[in-house]
Amino acid sequence: MTNVATGIPGVLSIRHLPGLREVSRQDLQTLLDTAQRFREGLDRQENFPKSLAGVSVVNLFFENSTRTRLSFETAQKKLGASPMNFTTSGSSAAKGESLRDTARNIESMGADVFVVRHQSAGVPQFLAKHTKAVVINAGDGACEHPTQGLLDALTMRQHLGDLAHREVAIIGDIRHSRVARSNIWALSTLGARVRLWGPATLLPRSPLAFGPSVSIAQSIEEALEGADAVMLLRIQHERQSSGMLPSLREYRQSFGLDHSRLKLARPGALVLHPGPINRGIEVVSEVADGAQSVILEQVTNGVAVRMACLHLLAGKNP
Amino acid sequence: MTNVATGIPGVLSIRHLPGLREVSRQDLQTLLDTAQRFREGLDRQENFPKSLAGVSVVNLFFENSTRTRLSFETAQKKLGASPMNFTTSGSSAAKGESLRDTARNIESMGADVFVVRHQSAGVPQFLAKHTKAVVINAGDGACEHPTQGLLDALTMRQHLGDLAHREVAIIGDIRHSRVARSNIWALSTLGARVRLWGPATLLPRSPLAFGPSVSIAQSIEEALEGADAVMLLRIQHERQSSGMLPSLREYRQSFGLDHSRLKLARPGALVLHPGPINRGIEVVSEVADGAQSVILEQVTNGVAVRMACLHLLAGKNP
Amino acid sequence: MTNVATGIPGVLSIRHLPGLREVSRQDLQTLLDTAQRFREGLDRQENFPKSLAGVSVVNLFFENSTRTRLSFETAQKKLGASPMNFTTSGSSAAKGESLRDTARNIESMGADVFVVRHQSAGVPQFLAKHTKAVVINAGDGACEHPTQGLLDALTMRQHLGDLAHREVAIIGDIRHSRVARSNIWALSTLGARVRLWGPATLLPRSPLAFGPSVSIAQSIEEALEGADAVMLLRIQHERQSSGMLPSLREYRQSFGLDHSRLKLARPGALVLHPGPINRGIEVVSEVADGAQSVILEQVTNGVAVRMACLHLLAGKNP
Repeated sequence: MTNVATGIPGVLSIRHLPGLREVSRQDLQTLLDTAQRFREGLDRQENFPKSLAGVSVVNLFFENSTRTRLSFETAQKKLGASPMNFTTSGSSAAKGESLRDTARNIESMGADVFVVRHQSAGVPQFLAKHTKAVVINAGDGACEHPTQGLLDALTMRQHLGDLAHREVAIIGDIRHSRVARSNIWALSTLGARVRLWGPATLLPRSPLAFGPSVSIAQSIEEALEGADAVMLLRIQHERQSSGMLPSLREYRQSFGLDHSRLKLARPGALVLHPGPINRGIEVVSEVADGAQSVILEQVTNGVAVRMACLHLLAGKNP
Repeated sequence: MTNVATGIPGVLSIRHLPGLREVSRQDLQTLLDTAQRFREGLDRQENFPKSLAGVSVVNLFFENSTRTRLSFETAQKKLGASPMNFTTSGSSAAKGESLRDTARNIESMGADVFVVRHQSAGVPQFLAKHTKAVVINAGDGACEHPTQGLLDALTMRQHLGDLAHREVAIIGDIRHSRVARSNIWALSTLGARVRLWGPATLLPRSPLAFGPSVSIAQSIEEALEGADAVMLLRIQHERQSSGMLPSLREYRQSFGLDHSRLKLARPGALVLHPGPINRGIEVVSEVADGAQSVILEQVTNGVAVRMACLHLLAGKNP
Repeated sequence: MTNVATGIPGVLSIRHLPGLREVSRQDLQTLLDTAQRFREGLDRQENFPKSLAGVSVVNLFFENSTRTRLSFETAQKKLGASPMNFTTSGSSAAKGESLRDTARNIESMGADVFVVRHQSAGVPQFLAKHTKAVVINAGDGACEHPTQGLLDALTMRQHLGDLAHREVAIIGDIRHSRVARSNIWALSTLGARVRLWGPATLLPRSPLAFGPSVSIAQSIEEALEGADAVMLLRIQHERQSSGMLPSLREYRQSFGLDHSRLKLARPGALVLHPGPINRGIEVVSEVADGAQSVILEQVTNGVAVRMACLHLLAGKNP
């Protein structure tokens, strides 16, 4: 089904985007196809349909994130919204107001869409239950970051085509990574296979929960061997003080990506990173800036993916 | 007198809105009638006249307030403004610049309207005197919060009709409450009677100054008895350390609203709260979320009232 | 060469505005002529050509500055942009990301223009080299603040006409002042002569580097004698603790401007200050608010100058 006004295909079966775990293959395809059209429009510097004109979008950022917020704002403005930003510092949330009261309050001012980032897992679902607004998750605790999962899938699809039977290595602090989790759900649904590798303390406790297409590698060599794409995760320095992370030097030795290790992957394998990069730790600069890196393409695709989510879930003529 | 372009009645005799104390009954009616039209437009998701297009609106928030700022910004955007936000942290005010210099500076950039919140009473009058911009008070110290007074009056009027001879109980820290003061001035002018109740240390020192329609109750029962509306004020926890507030348990016992106490009021009496609510202290959740609560309606009316103030005081074709 | 659509003259030979040092006399004239047209449009409350509509402008403020940011934002909105603001606190920069990565990241979201303020000298050149966006410097360390230099030149030109052979005194902390440096470059190029005066510890180490039209005065009397314009710089209180600044009382006595000293300058000489003013220190209030002061005109001209820079460097039909 194609919308006549916009030439954009499809309608989603979901009303909110709290995560990718429950999203069907069909909906993922619609989201990615729409994002692909927007990406092409961005490259051509097109004027986009103002499908968010008059739609009241509120970015509820309980956790700081300049780049994700900028990406969402860019997407919102491209579609004609003039978003409002709510951040925690100095807000009623800081005065001890409950999340439900804060959200219902802002909803009563006429908010149609909440883009929410929160340090606690489950907040997007909570908001979807307690307000009438459309809720899009911009990262909740260590749970999900669905637009990141989508932009990674879009980037891989642009280079690899259909992701079925593709092999993707995800390396780093899997246990605390909402980026890893959203990728795992999307990639599994799209038929890819995912190999996880990282310090033993930072691997998932129950990898079986992710289903049969996800496995834990036994070494970085096994993780990389023949992979179509390698995704590095950002090291959180605060994990070190809690004893979960070895020294940076050891991390680099056992988990960092350099040219010689990259050769283990399929020739031309993609290198992804959600940013910001710790250069020389997760990945050496020559690889991060090298011919196989698609790290900056991920950023551009992020705008396209967020446009797609907003347009399909909240646009006036989606 | 009705404006042909907008169908909105009236013209104000005032140029600024520093408070409600000096606002005539006629002007209050014009503000509330206009706000009522905007409220109906919000409910119908109307497109509003862009009477603030090209009007330079600056939100000067020397004191943090996410929800009041969001409400003003929503109102501004509905009328076509693209407001600018000035907050104290990191600003010249923090570098010791005088308020007058800061304001005249921003005025020289072309500001037409200042929406100002400040911790000191009297700042809006000061700005009205020293700049050419229209000044709307978004809360000054313990003095006034006129758009809150208007939104409360609008909410009561929607349920009770004409407020003449209506009985309104205001309970809590009256002495430090700009919300209470703006309500007292508006309600008195509109012919309602106001009963105040709270801890002795937090009652006004000279209630007679409010005029004959305002009285101090002797007990919570007397305050509630037959009231048409009950407004709870937010407890400021910092008053406790200064010895002005009893323990939270004692506060709840002597000043909190629950179902059995609410029965003392007129059947169907309205329950109002300016938010954010300390649930279980000023009011129990069953009442705050109950059938008689109009707390979320207050929030929606807040947008309509702010639209009315901006439109009538600064709109291009008011 | 005059643009037909806008009636605005000229095209620049530069692509970025990192500073005024390298800007030719011809380009300065084009910038000032364009700014003059915009200033007249502001006074007539004109609607301006929306030459920034669809242009993605990002204000990258690594250093706080409410008034400069407000001025740029006002200019951007007048020309139809809806700018995005990036400030350091809570951003990836705070997470240790390199400036180059931050900038290339934001660029990948589609940024066309960076307006950048940074505590380190040279950042605008660095960004111009490492991104494809147009870069406008909003202040870099103690190096340059070109839009301030332009607005000062515009203000002087409005009162004095051609600046060739005019005498301008700049008084205060010259060594650490990017305002002074941008003024020196612009004024020299436009043929004016500049006299510097301030505490010995705060005078430039190598004034000869500024060229033959710049001299160091031997006393405040010599600096003021017959000057056409007197520019006071803001005292940075933090210089005191480092022993570079005498007491405020001594500063006022040796470097402050009052009515009797102002009489040494040419009759009607202009008084300028970049703000925020330390009243009673750099300049007494009677002079700052007196008939010869053009301090608030500088602020209005600031909007016009920033419009000119944005329009000429990044406008769709400049």
